[in-house]
Amino acid sequence: MEDVVYTARGTPNIALIKYWGKRDEGLILPKNSSISLTLDGNAETVVGKAFKLYTTTSVVFSHKINADFIYIDGELQDLSNKAVRDRFAIIDILRGIAKTNAHAMVVSKNSFPTASGLASSASGIATLAYIASNALDLKLSERELSILARRGSGSACRSIMGGIVKWEKGEAKDGSDSFARQLYTHDYWPELLDLIAIVSEDKKKVASRAGMAQTVATSDLYRKRLEIVDGYAAQLEKAIEKKDMDVMAEIIMKESNSMHAVMLDTSPPIMYLNDISREIINAVHEINTASGKRICAYTFDAGPSPHIITTEHEKERIVDRLLKVEGLQSLLLTKMGKGPEMLQESDALIDKSFAPMLK
Amino acid sequence: MEDVVYTARGTPNIALIKYWGKRDEGLILPKNSSISLTLDGNAETVVGKAFKLYTTTSVVFSHKINADFIYIDGELQDLSNKAVRDRFAIIDILRGIAKTNAHAMVVSKNSFPTASGLASSASGIATLAYIASNALDLKLSERELSILARRGSGSACRSIMGGIVKWEKGEAKDGSDSFARQLYTHDYWPELLDLIAIVSEDKKKVASRAGMAQTVATSDLYRKRLEIVDGYAAQLEKAIEKKDMDVMAEIIMKESNSMHAVMLDTSPPIMYLNDISREIINAVHEINTASGKRICAYTFDAGPSPHIITTEHEKERIVDRLLKVEGLQSLLLTKMGKGPEMLQESDALIDKSFAPMLK
Repeated sequence: MEDVVYTARGTPNIALIKYWGKRDEGLILPKNSSISLTLDGNAETVVGKAFKLYTTTSVVFSHKINADFIYIDGELQDLSNKAVRDRFAIIDILRGIAKTNAHAMVVSKNSFPTASGLASSASGIATLAYIASNALDLKLSERELSILARRGSGSACRSIMGGIVKWEKGEAKDGSDSFARQLYTHDYWPELLDLIAIVSEDKKKVASRAGMAQTVATSDLYRKRLEIVDGYAAQLEKAIEKKDMDVMAEIIMKESNSMHAVMLDTSPPIMYLNDISREIINAVHEINTASGKRICAYTFDAGPSPHIITTEHEKERIVDRLLKVEGLQSLLLTKMGKGPEMLQESDALIDKSFAPMLK
Repeated sequence: MEDVVYTARGTPNIALIKYWGKRDEGLILPKNSSISLTLDGNAETVVGKAFKLYTTTSVVFSHKINADFIYIDGELQDLSNKAVRDRFAIIDILRGIAKTNAHAMVVSKNSFPTASGLASSASGIATLAYIASNALDLKLSERELSILARRGSGSACRSIMGGIVKWEKGEAKDGSDSFARQLYTHDYWPELLDLIAIVSEDKKKVASRAGMAQTVATSDLYRKRLEIVDGYAAQLEKAIEKKDMDVMAEIIMKESNSMHAVMLDTSPPIMYLNDISREIINAVHEINTASGKRICAYTFDAGPSPHIITTEHEKERIVDRLLKVEGLQSLLLTKMGKGPEMLQESDALIDKSFAPMLK
């Protein structure tokens, strides 16, 4: 099983019920369950710089390599740094399962810019878990893969499968019941769209990992969020079952606002939404009010760029309105995707002599 | 007692524990107690357009007038509009107490621009309650005056007296125990300063009255705020007693953020803080971090312009930092004031023939 380069690609997901706060920092166990759409990497650029939403990762395990090497977007990762090592602990875990001490070379690249506000860690870690376990021929289940990905980056566990995915928070201390499961495949609701409106990032960005720990430690309102957010998830599941965009949009926006509210209630406050974000929020509410029902919803991860969830039928009017927003850097259109997939040998980012190739 | 023009001036207050949400819309009874500083109208302009923080109001009750006339900043108010009439219901209440059916002429002007983000309703209604009860020679207590002012605009009840004021939420259905009382006179803490940083308002502003009703109706986090905010008030009272700026600043900022968090958790969200507000928030946290203790605090009412509470000793470094903020329209410096006061006949805004004079 060794000495062969394996390559796969995966994609980010957008949470409709957000993950914000851990009950276990080491095992990355969340305070609440979350629900997301795994995105189709083959996004269409409506305006701005064209890019796709893939992370492509090649892995080889070999005794011919004298250490682990991990390259992300051309940069060699510093594995002497504990935080970086923790992030890639899944390689050690997999080596343990496979009972091998072969070193790994990992080469990964994102087809989207880092400053795009698209969380690269979810697609990166999910793709790594997927391809590394394949490289070691471990035949892990999706559930096992999602637990593995969770250990690298919480939300990565939801990018292990396509379609609509729920990360069950679980109750067990060891995290064995904290995994993602697919609620619906990517073709369940073909009309469902995600318009990603990329707006300028602020220079100073609070990292999610530090930010959520700060919220758990200091926000009084956060405790209330924890009491209600699983209720939002249950309502969202029902709305998805009925394909009821009106109710779905209500919950998505409420839940995103609730997360950003507890961020603001953190000491010191965490503020990701900027003036452009606020303009888009107001525009979405105006469109919905004018329509007499909710036909679209915004949702913001830990950044100022919203994902606008809507349906094919309403696409044009929403795009028209978004294009009027000053300060919009690019607008991407995508839908639900299938999750990670194996690529051909010709797509490998590592050549046969185990040298990184950055195509 | 009739036919004499009486004139007084009052000032706004800045809440350190905010009022947001009513338990009785008609009587204007709040969901939580609040604490504020009544400001000294004689503000110093550090930068930008110079203005003071006074509302000056003249009142005359006379049988020679054939209807009520209320002018604010030169504009005749439309008393055929129920919302406007409700706002000035205190005139009817006072007439009832005084057993007179004389009509009133009221002329009021604010020495600060409407777009300054300084709530004119608090100083306006407080000054009106104060001067109209004097004009009718009613000898009301401060408590009675504050209940009266509350009926016109909730936060106005806190501008009836100077210094540090607490509006007790009360429990009674008729509002008889929901009044403001002075915790400390204006000279209790002479070093205490308020730097008002006026930043551009957004064009669309949600009125506080409608906004807070929307929060009560739709925000799930708001219920948690109500559980904790009286605790913040108790902590603030203790910090004020000890003149402990470090703890005081912590609570002031936490509480302001908590209010803006539940505003954001409202459907649709209410967002007053803009990019300039956020820059100032970050600057204040930076100053405090660099100082090793909290030496200043921001607090935002229903608008993007912060009041920075600090002490004389720290003034310069904070002013220096605030002057670096792009988009700052003006910076005012004030301290605690004495509350409403009677003015001379020569300051009257109504002439002897009962014609409005707008000096």
